[in-house]
Order: sequence, then C-alpha cells, then structure tokens
Amino acid sequence: MPEQITLYGRNESPYNHRVAITLAEVGAKYTMYILPAGDKPAWYTEKVNPTGKIPSISYGGPATDPASPSPESRKIPESLVIAEFIADLHPGTTLVPADPLKKADMRLFITLWDGKGMEHFRGFLFGAVTIEAYLAFFEELQARLSPTGFAVGEFSLADVAMAPFLLRSEMALKNEIGKYAVGDGKKVLDALAEPKFARIRKYTEDLKEWPSVKKTYDEAASYEAWANLPYIQRA
Amino acid sequence: MPEQITLYGRNESPYNHRVAITLAEVGAKYTMYILPAGDKPAWYTEKVNPTGKIPSISYGGPATDPASPSPESRKIPESLVIAEFIADLHPGTTLVPADPLKKADMRLFITLWDGKGMEHFRGFLFGAVTIEAYLAFFEELQARLSPTGFAVGEFSLADVAMAPFLLRSEMALKNEIGKYAVGDGKKVLDALAEPKFARIRKYTEDLKEWPSVKKTYDEAASYEAWANLPYIQRA
Repeated sequence: MPEQITLYGRNESPYNHRVAITLAEVGAKYTMYILPAGDKPAWYTEKVNPTGKIPSISYGGPATDPASPSPESRKIPESLVIAEFIADLHPGTTLVPADPLKKADMRLFITLWDGKGMEHFRGFLFGAVTIEAYLAFFEELQARLSPTGFAVGEFSLADVAMAPFLLRSEMALKNEIGKYAVGDGKKVLDALAEPKFARIRKYTEDLKEWPSVKKTYDEAASYEAWANLPYIQRA
Repeated sequence: MPEQITLYGRNESPYNHRVAITLAEVGAKYTMYILPAGDKPAWYTEKVNPTGKIPSISYGGPATDPASPSPESRKIPESLVIAEFIADLHPGTTLVPADPLKKADMRLFITLWDGKGMEHFRGFLFGAVTIEAYLAFFEELQARLSPTGFAVGEFSLADVAMAPFLLRSEMALKNEIGKYAVGDGKKVLDALAEPKFARIRKYTEDLKEWPSVKKTYDEAASYEAWANLPYIQRA
C-alpha cells in the first residue's frame, strides 16, 4: 500500500495548485488539509513547516488527524520540491522527461518562471510592471515553447510550475483584479488575442483543458478568493 | 565518443565553479573558455546566452572555435541546470540520489542556499546583514546537514550548489573582503570556531578536501579576483 500523503495548503494558492496538479496527474490518493489564510496554527509551524509557508506535505508514518501530524512522517515544503518528489514516486509519467536535454529545457522553464515570470506576474498585479513589459515577457516565454503540445512537448513539471499562474493571470486580467489602472487588464488580454500571441494562447487553452489541471482548478472559486486578497486591492 | 562540451565562464565565479566541480566529478572532458569580467562579447549574447550571464555551456555539434559556436550545438545557461544536465549524462554517480526522499532533501538544500543562503552570503559581504544573522543562518544550515558525510550523506548536487559559496565565504572573511566593518570577518570566523559549529566546520573542511572541489578551486586566485571586485570594496 502506498504511504499516506497529506497536503497542507489553500486551494486559491497557485503554489498549492502545483502540488494538486501533480497529485492528480499521478492519480495519488491524499488528504487535503485547508489552513487559514493568515496566521498559521502553532502545530503547523512546530510540526510541519517552521516557515509557516504553504504548501507542505506529510508523507508516510501512521494515519493521524492531520492537525496532529506524526513525528514519524516526513515533512516536505516547497511546491516544486514536493511536485518532483511525487513525480519520482511514480516514474511512469512524462512529468520529468527521460532525455537529459529535454529535462534541462524543463528546468529552464521553471527557472524562467520562478525568476522573471514571477517578477512580471506579481509586478503587474501590484501595478509596478507596465503592459508593454508584461507582454514582452509573454513573448519571451512563447518563443521558448515547443512548437506543439506543452512547454517541452509532453506534459511536464514545467507546465505544473506555470499553469497555476497563467490561469490566475488570465482570471485576474479578465476581472481587472490588481493594483494596475482599471482597463489595463482588458488591454493586456486584447493584445494577447492578437495573432502574434497565437502560440501562448493555444498553450494556455491546452493547459486549461488538460485533465489534471481542469480537475484541480475552479475559476469561480479562484475569482472569489483573489477578488478579496487584501494586498492586491486598489487604494 | 561523447559530445563536445564547452564551458563559458570565469574561474572566480562561484556559479561557474558549480559547473567545474560537476564536470570534474563525472570526469568529463571539456573546453573552458574564459570570458571578460565586464561586458561580454557580442557573439556570446547572440550565439550562447542572450542574458550575457555566466556560466553557459555549448553541448554537441561540430568542433569549432569556442568564440564561433556552431548553431548545431545546444546552449544551456544556469549553473544548476547545467550541473544536473551533466549529472544526467553520467547516471552512475551519487550526484542525484536515487531515493526520492533523499533527492527531495538535496533539492531543499539547494532551495535554502539559493534563497536564504544567498541573501545572507551576499548581504554580509555588502554590509547589510549582521554577524548575528549570518551566524543564525549557518546554524540553520548546520541543523539540516546529514550527521556525517556531505549534505545528504553522499556527495550530491546539494554540495555542488553550496561548496563554491562556503569556500569563498571563508576566504573573504579570512581576508576581511567585503563592505562590513574591518574585523567583523575575524569575528564571524572566531564564532564559527566554537564547538557549537563543529558540524558545519567539518562539512566545510570535507568539501575542501573532496577531489572534484579541490581540483577546481585555487584559493590564492580566488583571493586575487575577489580582493579587486569593485562592488564589494569598502568606501
């Protein structure tokens, strides 16, 4: 029998979503434990993740109440470390390409997203990145995508890393959520609707329709949560 | 015959050093091409790495003058992506542990170093992190180390990621290189000499003596280069 997995997080978190997609992709059974949005309970920082960040998982050990995790289970933080760990437990998938060059490509997408991608995604939401700069980033990302299929062709951890953010970027822009000027969300979406962005548009649509992504993303719930996130409200 | 590998970088760069250690660890033959410290030649940003950052490698393709890289070779940037790519080409080593939990541990060390570790290492050199905070980081790192051996036991990419910085941190402190107050380097080293830091001291010594690290690190040359780095000179 496989070891128990408990995922500690919140559904609206794109980092949590990375783990949820991976678990769905490999068909792993797990317990989802929803933590509060603000301060985390003391048992979480004491017994699961000292930083208090989400997501984390507990892996193995005896079955317990998730709020009383066993010292015998392993605790793993960091969305991409967890995602790769889960992929490694299920070696039959395409999540980590076997070809070293393709795997390097996968890691370069992750590096691009977690660096420049996050700077632009967060920066635009916070009103600190211009429309032009955000679109230039999308152009750079698009140029690196495999001509067909997902980021490196078959669905991989590169897509796991990016999908939660690309979907939430679209949701936020469509609803003008963020600190940018009202109307700028529509401007970005209109620009992305142009023929020159056909590849990244197709990529985003493919991500939305991919079973493990679709199953783990509820756009209406995502909207509800993000529309009320205090730190991205306009003054 | 294995494909050609050309490493573009500079020996004093700890990022370059990560790649050099990995290449030494697997015993790969490669050509080292030293780039200038400041602006990079146009052919480098055009044909190897558009960001101009070092290190990068070219892999495969016909043998050419390194300054005229072939469009047929693959170009890979990012020290840790390169290091893992090289490890993947040589699956017989301990660089990437086979056990998923150990591999997750390895990635958590890398995440810790590239986040909090770099903030403290750079921060201390730039005079923006206190002695106490730098020591607290070393304590956190030490607590995570495997009780014996390297970071996760056997020599892995976690050690590849950290060794170049730990060695240069020691070299800089010993020579009071950086923007912190003169004498603070000695204070940090004196604190690290206390019994409570025995594990990380042993770890650093083990790294220095490990063949692939020893072979690729020249402390005197490192001192010469860093003593003159313009951005860490005291006013």
